[in-house]
Amino acid sequence: MRILILNPNTSPDFTRVIQKAGEAVKSPETEVVCLNPSSGPRSIENVYDELLSCPPGLEILIAKQMTFDGFIIACFGNHPLIHAGRVMLAQPVIGIMEAALHIACFVGHKFSVISAGDRGIPDFEDAVKAFGLADRCASIRSTSTAVLAITGSGRATVEDAIIEQARKAIEQDGAEAICLGCAGMAGVEERIQRELGVPAIDGVASAVKLMEALIDCSLKTSKRGAYAPLTEKELVGLPPIFASPYADK
Amino acid sequence: MRILILNPNTSPDFTRVIQKAGEAVKSPETEVVCLNPSSGPRSIENVYDELLSCPPGLEILIAKQMTFDGFIIACFGNHPLIHAGRVMLAQPVIGIMEAALHIACFVGHKFSVISAGDRGIPDFEDAVKAFGLADRCASIRSTSTAVLAITGSGRATVEDAIIEQARKAIEQDGAEAICLGCAGMAGVEERIQRELGVPAIDGVASAVKLMEALIDCSLKTSKRGAYAPLTEKELVGLPPIFASPYADK
Amino acid sequence: MRILILNPNTSPDFTRVIQKAGEAVKSPETEVVCLNPSSGPRSIENVYDELLSCPPGLEILIAKQMTFDGFIIACFGNHPLIHAGRVMLAQPVIGIMEAALHIACFVGHKFSVISAGDRGIPDFEDAVKAFGLADRCASIRSTSTAVLAITGSGRATVEDAIIEQARKAIEQDGAEAICLGCAGMAGVEERIQRELGVPAIDGVASAVKLMEALIDCSLKTSKRGAYAPLTEKELVGLPPIFASPYADK
Amino acid sequence: MRILILNPNTSPDFTRVIQKAGEAVKSPETEVVCLNPSSGPRSIENVYDELLSCPPGLEILIAKQMTFDGFIIACFGNHPLIHAGRVMLAQPVIGIMEAALHIACFVGHKFSVISAGDRGIPDFEDAVKAFGLADRCASIRSTSTAVLAITGSGRATVEDAIIEQARKAIEQDGAEAICLGCAGMAGVEERIQRELGVPAIDGVASAVKLMEALIDCSLKTSKRGAYAPLTEKELVGLPPIFASPYADK
Amino acid sequence: MRILILNPNTSPDFTRVIQKAGEAVKSPETEVVCLNPSSGPRSIENVYDELLSCPPGLEILIAKQMTFDGFIIACFGNHPLIHAGRVMLAQPVIGIMEAALHIACFVGHKFSVISAGDRGIPDFEDAVKAFGLADRCASIRSTSTAVLAITGSGRATVEDAIIEQARKAIEQDGAEAICLGCAGMAGVEERIQRELGVPAIDGVASAVKLMEALIDCSLKTSKRGAYAPLTEKELVGLPPIFASPYADK
Amino acid sequence: MRILILNPNTSPDFTRVIQKAGEAVKSPETEVVCLNPSSGPRSIENVYDELLSCPPGLEILIAKQMTFDGFIIACFGNHPLIHAGRVMLAQPVIGIMEAALHIACFVGHKFSVISAGDRGIPDFEDAVKAFGLADRCASIRSTSTAVLAITGSGRATVEDAIIEQARKAIEQDGAEAICLGCAGMAGVEERIQRELGVPAIDGVASAVKLMEALIDCSLKTSKRGAYAPLTEKELVGLPPIFASPYADK
Repeated sequence: MRILILNPNTSPDFTRVIQKAGEAVKSPETEVVCLNPSSGPRSIENVYDELLSCPPGLEILIAKQMTFDGFIIACFGNHPLIHAGRVMLAQPVIGIMEAALHIACFVGHKFSVISAGDRGIPDFEDAVKAFGLADRCASIRSTSTAVLAITGSGRATVEDAIIEQARKAIEQDGAEAICLGCAGMAGVEERIQRELGVPAIDGVASAVKLMEALIDCSLKTSKRGAYAPLTEKELVGLPPIFASPYADK
Repeated sequence: MRILILNPNTSPDFTRVIQKAGEAVKSPETEVVCLNPSSGPRSIENVYDELLSCPPGLEILIAKQMTFDGFIIACFGNHPLIHAGRVMLAQPVIGIMEAALHIACFVGHKFSVISAGDRGIPDFEDAVKAFGLADRCASIRSTSTAVLAITGSGRATVEDAIIEQARKAIEQDGAEAICLGCAGMAGVEERIQRELGVPAIDGVASAVKLMEALIDCSLKTSKRGAYAPLTEKELVGLPPIFASPYADK
Repeated sequence: MRILILNPNTSPDFTRVIQKAGEAVKSPETEVVCLNPSSGPRSIENVYDELLSCPPGLEILIAKQMTFDGFIIACFGNHPLIHAGRVMLAQPVIGIMEAALHIACFVGHKFSVISAGDRGIPDFEDAVKAFGLADRCASIRSTSTAVLAITGSGRATVEDAIIEQARKAIEQDGAEAICLGCAGMAGVEERIQRELGVPAIDGVASAVKLMEALIDCSLKTSKRGAYAPLTEKELVGLPPIFASPYADK
Repeated sequence: MRILILNPNTSPDFTRVIQKAGEAVKSPETEVVCLNPSSGPRSIENVYDELLSCPPGLEILIAKQMTFDGFIIACFGNHPLIHAGRVMLAQPVIGIMEAALHIACFVGHKFSVISAGDRGIPDFEDAVKAFGLADRCASIRSTSTAVLAITGSGRATVEDAIIEQARKAIEQDGAEAICLGCAGMAGVEERIQRELGVPAIDGVASAVKLMEALIDCSLKTSKRGAYAPLTEKELVGLPPIFASPYADK
Repeated sequence: MRILILNPNTSPDFTRVIQKAGEAVKSPETEVVCLNPSSGPRSIENVYDELLSCPPGLEILIAKQMTFDGFIIACFGNHPLIHAGRVMLAQPVIGIMEAALHIACFVGHKFSVISAGDRGIPDFEDAVKAFGLADRCASIRSTSTAVLAITGSGRATVEDAIIEQARKAIEQDGAEAICLGCAGMAGVEERIQRELGVPAIDGVASAVKLMEALIDCSLKTSKRGAYAPLTEKELVGLPPIFASPYADK
Repeated sequence: MRILILNPNTSPDFTRVIQKAGEAVKSPETEVVCLNPSSGPRSIENVYDELLSCPPGLEILIAKQMTFDGFIIACFGNHPLIHAGRVMLAQPVIGIMEAALHIACFVGHKFSVISAGDRGIPDFEDAVKAFGLADRCASIRSTSTAVLAITGSGRATVEDAIIEQARKAIEQDGAEAICLGCAGMAGVEERIQRELGVPAIDGVASAVKLMEALIDCSLKTSKRGAYAPLTEKELVGLPPIFASPYADK
């Protein structure tokens, strides 16, 4: 099977980290390809960045829809491309935040999420509620760093901050598992397990394995209800590629 | 005061209905202007339409930010422009769905929402939950019609369908007030009140009055937490106008 | 339009503060009158005070029902006169706590409420839940002062205590907006905004603007369900004025 | 031990039914006295009736506070005298609705409440939520009758309506136990158990047994938090008896 | 009436403490007998212990089912014997944790639970949610001690730890009443009331009084839904006594 | 990797169905073995059956703990062996109900569960709440059949009943995906997808893929909090094998 991981930001460093995280856990039979758009914000840290990342992301989903068996949206959060992808595509679509959270439920009674930046605290709280998992969430904590610092030279400092917040989540909030709140954090799992004694969950790895699960179980997005197919629609003044998801149906 | 109502779809009929609904309730001192983008989907009925409507909508918010005291996003739902606007702009931003729902809480113990299309049932359920008002929502019901039918020649049929669903919401679901689930439904309020004996709430009218309330009370979006100002960011290959919200901060 | 603000306690100082807070935000076309009963507790700080304030408050609502377009109950809490008023009167009725809370939802992701006294912590928690807004409430905090201190010579001390609790709500509880938990606190909004950088919401101001919104939108309390009209009832040994709400129907 | 059951309405028929229901289940050692005020509404069916019943009810609680070990408020609902009593009195106070609901949790996974009148549907829903028991409530259903009909000549018809609604609650809503939503319904329990095969719970009987439980366990209302004692307060123009709860403290 | 209290662990010290706690509050007419199985874990501190305690506990329930009017499961938690007992037996069955929690609701707005060991924090949180009482629970706190220490020579130390955690629950978490989270803690109630000024609730005492309430009100477990009678079933290789609950039906 | 699927009932037919369902989806690298105990109830349909199935199930978990990489408890429900296994074992443990529910969240906005018997309605409702997924659950419906009928000669009738209930879940309750509420239902997925157009999720298949995910991501049960290791404990009169999980630690 072939899985496309769409990194919606335009940081090639992130794309490399994600590609590596996906390859590390995939089954031998699975092919994983991580792509990022050629235009858009360098990192996604708020809803404005998120919206700017959508048209380039949609173009990739449309262009690649015939050549992959499943699509992963590799931006930690309730990124709207997850839901747009489910409406547009026949194949299953998974977001890395929902993937991490659901997987966390199998290894602990409650999880905490460590966000890179402070805005993650309210934003991820909304996302956790939207995914219906608020009852399992002990807390959301932030390292108060910019997302791009994670893959840069300050990596060690960010890792220390992740450990510090994870420790507080465990000792003060009752977390039994830690979800890494950014695709770029992949790789800290082992250190958390070793130093804090609890499992740490990376969203990219989780999403790849969950996508293999859906595909091996022949499961696709339900086309009743929220993700019913698009019907015909008049578009005004937009590039023709955006018309194709309507036309396909 | 000057209020901009952004209709994110590209239907001039909708823009006219919205302009009229806003003018009908505004204070004499208030000026209300409804605009729609020149590009984008003709109507917004799902998350894909919604995302296509964002870049043109963002351009209007950026271009008009110096000349209005408040901004209303006139698409019924949890449209992402509400949240992006709150991050980008100094002035308050209100969405018409949240406006209708909160106003409904003052005239009845529970409200129901009448959606134009069936996808509104799951989508509005998520939105009600995101707005934190699930406890006050009796039900979401759909007239199973296309949004554009509301302002077209089939208006009478759609109105009858709204009445029918509102009646069921009252009699079967315990609704005490009805929220009109589409900007284009403005005008049916009176008929619902007369035939069914409960108040009906239009989102555009509600949002205009709530915006007057915020402005007269000198209230603006909190810049702590979820809507903290944007910080510097590198954009790749996007029109320069999208860089200005970062630069402004 | 004419709005009656009923201050259910018997403190003329409070009545003056409330009158001033209402006039500061009303539209030029609106007339606002604040009245308090001539009998009852000097301040309302618990359910016993609240119940003693009801018969005198009911008398005012009955006596004034023909001469006002809307009624505001200016006691911060889920005061039973809000609900009795909705049952008894044709015109809309709004409480100042629900007004502040709903308005807060438009300027921040989460609000906190600052209560004057400690009993507000459990009581307002129940009220927030009754209004269906628990998901939007970050915390309830108390300044541990008597309500009447707010309009007395100790005003400056109380203001400092409000600022201190609001700061904790923002920094420790994730509040993005502050609701002032007592009609007498009106006037501290500006200082909170200036010193803490978040919007502060006064219930009286909020209720006046929301009442204008309801009236301009021709919205009245639903008479289906919770607020259905009173039917005939035998009263024993009570002053005749209390019989009139039954007779009117 | 001596338990006072306060019937807040002025129907002696109700008082007799309540006295009988209490005596039927009390321990031999317990003395039960049911009283109703000499003034107030004949029956309590809405928040307006409820507020009119409070001053006469408060007078009884104050007058009898030295001579009983516990106080029961025998109006089905979240009657404010429950909470006022807990603030005013040293002895425990129990409402008959909360009593029935909590007892129901021991004999079934979910209960339904059968209200006399339709307003009970929204009102009891709010009460169930206020008591924190919404998760255990299958539904609230109404017989659409006036409360006084229950003790009058139409008793048989009302009983049939109770059975009909209880049957629907069991078959359609998943109820496993039935709470009788009015003090006057006492006596139908046996018929529900016999005809429908599920336990039926009367609030008066439940409250008497729970009061014996509290007293035998030496449990009294917590005086920390919501029910902290009253402190000194100036009352204006009210009968002197209402000042005594402040003075006592 | 005759009430069997089943202590599912094999500690005779616990059985004595429980017997004493039950006798201290029972009505003169009630006979209370506490038994423990002759095999199984000495104390129950986790789900594994709990499951080992079930077969011996089931044997006692089966053997004694003809000779008692009600059965109490005296292990603080959501012990599965509560639910198995309700399915198997005609008489009512009550667990001591649910008993304490429901009783606590009558003497305070919010309760906290003090667990002996740390695992009680997640386990009791699940139990509180399962009983549907999460809205009334301020917190769960642990004394971090082994259960058996409570009845041993370290009793005084454990009592001090209970007081310390209860104090924190009151001052930091808003608890107004304290539930003792272990049958062995019976006896500390008075000290909590005296030193901390809030009521403390013992589960055994609560369960005995609630059982008297159910029996005096002629209430038995509903046999519709969750606790419907067992139907015929083939058992393989188990002692014949376990077949009798099927055969009885 | 080697996965043990423990079928806690003693029906070899069930074991065969489960083995087949697991093999159908496993990765080529995975070995799947399904075992059932030699003693216990033939099928598990209530909490009494469940408890009888525990000691034989625990014995298998203890005996096989050195030779498998992960353990699946193949009884649809919140079977206590899931939680006991997580406490006892170093390797991850997954239940088939939680597996199906979490997987369903990736292919639809809301899922319904189709139970074999009617007791599943209250029991699965509790389980859904315990798993923290109530917000995603549209309904629980029952085919009103005995579990063993599913693998017997009445299979076709049961399948028709599953289709009928699934159709109602989709059309009346808003389900977008269907969870098969019994291990024996495996194989109906395709028919549901074909006839009703929504994905159907089998718990065994889901659990096998999720277990591969956990193992490939090196994730094990957190040993902080709810699943902390067992400490020393005295067992009285039980077979020595049950002592080993304590001794191992």
